[in-house]
Amino acid sequence: MSSLLLKNARYIITQNSGREVLENKDILIEGNTISEIGEHLKGDEEIDCSRNIVMPGLINLHTHSAMNLLKGYSDDLKLVDWLSKKVWPIEAKFQPEDVKWGSMLAFLEMVKTGTTCFNDMYFSSDIIAKCAQTIGIRGFIGYGLIDLNKYGSGFDEEKRKSELKETLRIRDFIRSMHDSKITFAVAPHAPYACSEELLLKAKEIADNEHAPYHIHVSETKKEVSDSVEQFGKRPVVRLHDMGILDSNVIMAHAVWVNDTEWQMLKGTKTKVVNCPVSNLKLASGIPPWHGLKEIHAGLGTDSAASNNNLNMFEDMKMAAIIQKLSVGDASLVTAQDVLDMATCNGADALRINAGRIEPDKLADIITLNVNQLMINPLRRDNLISNIVYSASGADVHDTIIDGKVLMRYRKVLTVSQDEVIQKANERSNILFS
Amino acid sequence: MSSLLLKNARYIITQNSGREVLENKDILIEGNTISEIGEHLKGDEEIDCSRNIVMPGLINLHTHSAMNLLKGYSDDLKLVDWLSKKVWPIEAKFQPEDVKWGSMLAFLEMVKTGTTCFNDMYFSSDIIAKCAQTIGIRGFIGYGLIDLNKYGSGFDEEKRKSELKETLRIRDFIRSMHDSKITFAVAPHAPYACSEELLLKAKEIADNEHAPYHIHVSETKKEVSDSVEQFGKRPVVRLHDMGILDSNVIMAHAVWVNDTEWQMLKGTKTKVVNCPVSNLKLASGIPPWHGLKEIHAGLGTDSAASNNNLNMFEDMKMAAIIQKLSVGDASLVTAQDVLDMATCNGADALRINAGRIEPDKLADIITLNVNQLMINPLRRDNLISNIVYSASGADVHDTIIDGKVLMRYRKVLTVSQDEVIQKANERSNILFS
Repeated sequence: MSSLLLKNARYIITQNSGREVLENKDILIEGNTISEIGEHLKGDEEIDCSRNIVMPGLINLHTHSAMNLLKGYSDDLKLVDWLSKKVWPIEAKFQPEDVKWGSMLAFLEMVKTGTTCFNDMYFSSDIIAKCAQTIGIRGFIGYGLIDLNKYGSGFDEEKRKSELKETLRIRDFIRSMHDSKITFAVAPHAPYACSEELLLKAKEIADNEHAPYHIHVSETKKEVSDSVEQFGKRPVVRLHDMGILDSNVIMAHAVWVNDTEWQMLKGTKTKVVNCPVSNLKLASGIPPWHGLKEIHAGLGTDSAASNNNLNMFEDMKMAAIIQKLSVGDASLVTAQDVLDMATCNGADALRINAGRIEPDKLADIITLNVNQLMINPLRRDNLISNIVYSASGADVHDTIIDGKVLMRYRKVLTVSQDEVIQKANERSNILFS
Repeated sequence: MSSLLLKNARYIITQNSGREVLENKDILIEGNTISEIGEHLKGDEEIDCSRNIVMPGLINLHTHSAMNLLKGYSDDLKLVDWLSKKVWPIEAKFQPEDVKWGSMLAFLEMVKTGTTCFNDMYFSSDIIAKCAQTIGIRGFIGYGLIDLNKYGSGFDEEKRKSELKETLRIRDFIRSMHDSKITFAVAPHAPYACSEELLLKAKEIADNEHAPYHIHVSETKKEVSDSVEQFGKRPVVRLHDMGILDSNVIMAHAVWVNDTEWQMLKGTKTKVVNCPVSNLKLASGIPPWHGLKEIHAGLGTDSAASNNNLNMFEDMKMAAIIQKLSVGDASLVTAQDVLDMATCNGADALRINAGRIEPDKLADIITLNVNQLMINPLRRDNLISNIVYSASGADVHDTIIDGKVLMRYRKVLTVSQDEVIQKANERSNILFS
């Protein structure tokens, strides 16, 4: 097993339980795991980190990667028009090559902006899984289950069967990849788009497979009022009463969740993903910080169709400052709080041994250069602030995933950026012609 | 007079009255001015722009450049603690070298993130003006006038005299520079920090000098209620009744402005600067879009102490999406709206012949490369969206100010970035030791 040494790191933001920042220490990586942090260590390959800030890679806990092909296609529209008049009609035209190059573009963007792991929900998930493997990024891949009938007025048993069949096909496909970085997830789209039968069956599969149960919940106010009208219950209460809330459930958005519901989420150890940029751009709303904080929420970009990029640095900054504004208290939510959301909280939600730089953790690591303009002047006391509030994804210098160096000096080593851009444009030009 | 040709630009975002985007055209720059846009033009020096998006440079209409030295020093604090316990005490320790290297860092950051002109308010303004000249950026330099006495309980006539003397010294200094890029501005800090006499005297100087009158107004709710309590009038009404509102007045923030006041601003052609990132981070509030839109507001970062960078791309995105959220309408505020704020609206507020790519406009121009990952896939129809919502300042490729190429392939040609970072750190380490 070969080893990689990150030598003499100027700063190591460990994100360990004491949130320690170490100075001038080595990190030894053996295989895909951090084995030791110390001084004067030796490795087969050594990278000089004396001018680097070394920190855990960011975890994008909610995205639809392939939608990167729809970047800038449907902006500045009301949510209902955005989905029904723009996104769904164009997605209906998607070919496998569109999913492929949209995903390749997305994963390249992630690696270049410091994301080392993502949680995806989409279709053609086998293609997405292959793309993630090609680039070398860690990913949780869920096929978005929907059994609403085509009139949107009820549920369709045949569709449900074929959807479940597809999710099992994806499970088998991912199993056949034998890639520990690629993990199967179960992804019922939302309580309003799935029958109770489908929601429950999906939970059964997730439990059997020890897989995350990735679902959109209470993104908009209308979703909640519709649920109350149709079922007499708010979405989180419905899921609670169905017995679905659980520690393997990852709920994207949770914007319109009341205090009773936050207690249900907390009591069941349900996970939540805050997606602030998307929630602002689609004018959905802002979840209360006390809720997010108590349940250690993670952070997601959502798709490039509603963000419009996958740059987690933007979401970290936004997650903090929108909460300050919404409560009128600039001291609410610290830079450390949102760094936690994007690292250890995300890892814990996905139940992976990552998000921290400690022995025995997965070696998913990014570096920034201390000479980057945007983070200077730099001192120990403004380090976290400058990363969260001043830096951008473009300041990421190296990206290491599963112990492998995927980006060095901002050059991604596993794919050709020019080719990915060219192919994505070819597909976009056909799609939008 | 030498000429510079931007040859065969893939896209030119003109920001002219029809908001035309031209394809595959040349831009001829003679001296500091755009002289012609066409085909098969010739220039003394030619830059191939066949893979570039060419657009007007961004105009940062409200900032305190030297505060870049305070980046990350005082985050996540309530506004009153931020100012009184952190910012003011450290500023009291500022030496000329601190202002110098804070400003150099700021201007370097601006040039690298596509800002070609700024409107500054601070002290040691002669140093700031020299730094702007060294880097080669266009700037409006105002000395922040305050005649509050040291107890904050009234105004001090001696202080007023010395403040006015300093502003005239700065005027004379800037005049002696004979640099058409550096312009004197008059900058009374705020209606609560200046006596009426000072506010009026400052206006007289601004009028005589044909200079902007740059002032903070109604940034916080408390500022408005204090004004009502103390003077029986809201700040904008006070300035209106004093006869100060005018087309040379540039009002930063204007967060807490009511409809009557917006009418006063509109009627007097007063200019307003929206600073969304700072307003969120300090939890100040959000001005209503109808007000900003009607008076063609510009855009500013405010200082790096409350932003925490000077990247106008972040402020463009934020300006749009925070308005969508605050009204609950994703169709409110388009990418084009905020691009206007950052370009032509800023130029009009400063009364400079810039912010557009048209013959006879100042050659303040930036380019992006069409091969940049973040803005792809790229088509004519998503060009503006991708620049506003997907790009970051790090995607700016070249920066041209006053007809001179200041940055080429992301390398700033007029100063050494390494030296600026090193000096800024030396000063910061002394200041915070």
